Amino acid sequence: MSRIRGKAVVAQSGGPTAVINASAAGVIQTALANESVFTAVYGAYNGILGVLQEELFDLGAEDPCQIELLRRSPSSALGSCRYKLKDMATSRADYERIVEVFKAHDIRFFFYIGGNDSMDTADKVAQLAAETGYEMQAVGVPKTIDNDLACTDHCPGYGSVAKYTAVTAMNAGRDTESLWTHDMTTVMEVMGRNAGWIAAAAGLARRSDEDAPHLILMPEVTFDLDKFVADVQECLKLYRRCFIVTGEGIKTADGKYLGEAGGDFGSDAFGHTQLGGAGQALRAIIESKVGVKARYNSAGTSQRNARHFASATDVAEAYMVGSAAVRAALDGVSGKMVTLVRAGGGQYRCTTGLADLADVANGEKPVPAEFINDAGNGVTEAFRQYARPLIAGVAEVRMGDDGLPVYARLAKRLVAKKAGGEYAVE
Amino acid sequence: MSRIRGKAVVAQSGGPTAVINASAAGVIQTALANESVFTAVYGAYNGILGVLQEELFDLGAEDPCQIELLRRSPSSALGSCRYKLKDMATSRADYERIVEVFKAHDIRFFFYIGGNDSMDTADKVAQLAAETGYEMQAVGVPKTIDNDLACTDHCPGYGSVAKYTAVTAMNAGRDTESLWTHDMTTVMEVMGRNAGWIAAAAGLARRSDEDAPHLILMPEVTFDLDKFVADVQECLKLYRRCFIVTGEGIKTADGKYLGEAGGDFGSDAFGHTQLGGAGQALRAIIESKVGVKARYNSAGTSQRNARHFASATDVAEAYMVGSAAVRAALDGVSGKMVTLVRAGGGQYRCTTGLADLADVANGEKPVPAEFINDAGNGVTEAFRQYARPLIAGVAEVRMGDDGLPVYARLAKRLVAKKAGGEYAVE
Repeated sequence: MSRIRGKAVVAQSGGPTAVINASAAGVIQTALANESVFTAVYGAYNGILGVLQEELFDLGAEDPCQIELLRRSPSSALGSCRYKLKDMATSRADYERIVEVFKAHDIRFFFYIGGNDSMDTADKVAQLAAETGYEMQAVGVPKTIDNDLACTDHCPGYGSVAKYTAVTAMNAGRDTESLWTHDMTTVMEVMGRNAGWIAAAAGLARRSDEDAPHLILMPEVTFDLDKFVADVQECLKLYRRCFIVTGEGIKTADGKYLGEAGGDFGSDAFGHTQLGGAGQALRAIIESKVGVKARYNSAGTSQRNARHFASATDVAEAYMVGSAAVRAALDGVSGKMVTLVRAGGGQYRCTTGLADLADVANGEKPVPAEFINDAGNGVTEAFRQYARPLIAGVAEVRMGDDGLPVYARLAKRLVAKKAGGEYAVE
Repeated sequence: MSRIRGKAVVAQSGGPTAVINASAAGVIQTALANESVFTAVYGAYNGILGVLQEELFDLGAEDPCQIELLRRSPSSALGSCRYKLKDMATSRADYERIVEVFKAHDIRFFFYIGGNDSMDTADKVAQLAAETGYEMQAVGVPKTIDNDLACTDHCPGYGSVAKYTAVTAMNAGRDTESLWTHDMTTVMEVMGRNAGWIAAAAGLARRSDEDAPHLILMPEVTFDLDKFVADVQECLKLYRRCFIVTGEGIKTADGKYLGEAGGDFGSDAFGHTQLGGAGQALRAIIESKVGVKARYNSAGTSQRNARHFASATDVAEAYMVGSAAVRAALDGVSGKMVTLVRAGGGQYRCTTGLADLADVANGEKPVPAEFINDAGNGVTEAFRQYARPLIAGVAEVRMGDDGLPVYARLAKRLVAKKAGGEYAVE
């Protein structure tokens, strides 16, 4: 049992996913069920920004049906941000402000749902307890469509984007197949800045050689123009069409993003280059070097929020990690992130574990070599065996009378400020 | 009863849809059930090209389970094309070839599933009977995601792309809502060269003012730069975010496509300009004139093949028009297209009718003024009442053990050539 007692804050950070709200529901419902330790459960509006700006709302005052509906709602219902805490020496004010707000509200527990940047923030908050003597616990809940977090078998959010990517490649692949007399090639660009997990997932759609996608380009494999052109030509010879899935972050041998020329629109708050041009670049290459028409598809943000056709496994695991984070906190755990642990044996089974936030924070897990085919333009059966269980089942959706899904909307009534003051973030 | 007896050919033309195969299934199953009139049912590979090149396959020899599975499979399983017959004076050879192939195989019935260009082709084939004295019947089966065919209440294919567009706007809209501290605006570009029906469908997602999409741009409304910038600014003031859906074919007052500067990649075989740049243009406008970051989503061809979350109503109606075309042929009808007729009264109910192919062929049905709001940036309740029944129900999907849909694949074993010779199309 945790030695301390007080309010809990849950927050969501970074890019939304189809299931990050299921993790929030896991945290909220489990925490609300343990009121002897958690005297209240607050949501921070827009991630850590909600703490810094003291924009907190009481999740116990929300309609419990809406909390339950979070399991079936995509994106980050608490609001999200891309604000990253700098180190303590540089941004002392941020840390003092966090402790000030926590103390003012008797907040003793911090659950941060996010990717590696968010785990870095959670780690720094966890360290505040030792630094300041203010007793509190911080536990991380993994989330990222990119599936690139260290220390965990896979990440909640990935199974659903993988399912979406595979089915989208399958659907659009049939388009190219039908209309090959007119559109012989299609380039589908998917997210994935540094890791090719999402692009790889398209490989699940390929049940036979003629099925799309015929080529998969991942950032783990250096882009080689001549080889790409030869691959497309070979594919056109074999199938009279070529369907290509590319991660947004593929790079040439000199380390430059393929999309940089056509699609560089600056950097985000974390200093990552915002990409989006790889697919357009490939299209231009096909049209100029292969001399056939190329279509370009890019689902953008809709790919990471495709809750209408999400993986049932992913939704269940997302809830599980949220709930496990609260149980870990009840056991006195701090400075850890909940991980997903795949049991051995034939049948897929997954439990939770814990890893140090620091180990997760700045690690990255690219697609390993054994998941990429020898030609560097597709995935192996080992990858399919890894990924297939993660997309199993179609998650239930609450459908409205109007033929569309019904998603949760929280009231988010802010609690009265106690620390007060305006806090300007950089 | 038809006075003639002989083989039937069914073919698919133009851009695929999520349900055009359901129409094919309706034609094939109904024709196969009437063998006293239809001595065989052939598929033409790649639309009218399959007739010209004598690439025909026997649909009666296909696995009946695969024919049944066509109801649940997107895209054009028979193969498609964008080849348009020119008038008889210009392309005499094409017409002579069609009659040559039809005579060689005793083909007396032609069912063409497609949009207005395809109805023009079907019309010309129907006229061949009178011109040549070779008795045959041609019946058109409507298909287009664009929903712009004249003479019919709506078009099979539209309900599913409408459902896809609405749910995608809903999902991506939640993304913008969650991450408004970082991505304040999103531009989602959808298909629709001349008509805004698909863009309009996104309006079904908007249950309250704060829901996406906040602005809908349709080709029916002339694009006004200053008004657009003011609309985005107003929306940002109200909701701190702005989600915009645009049709690809919006034009400025001088009649130029907004995407022309950045996204002109030539013309297709029908002389239509291939568009795709409206969304990118809007993004650039927002970033330069409003000064906030804009995201860009464009599902491309995956939008028209989204069979995994299709409208059950659309799938049923697509089958119905296919079946009705065959029944019409049995009644001796030729030179007509099957239409969808909405019954009056409170409850949505739809039956079929017939229209002259010539009336459909070169007509177009833009979104009428009463479906567009006064500000020209959204839809009216009248539109929602029109469109809502069309997206009702989630169509069943056959799911595989691998967590993905299973779609039909026809064997397409070509029948022996009887007309013979190579026929080169222009």
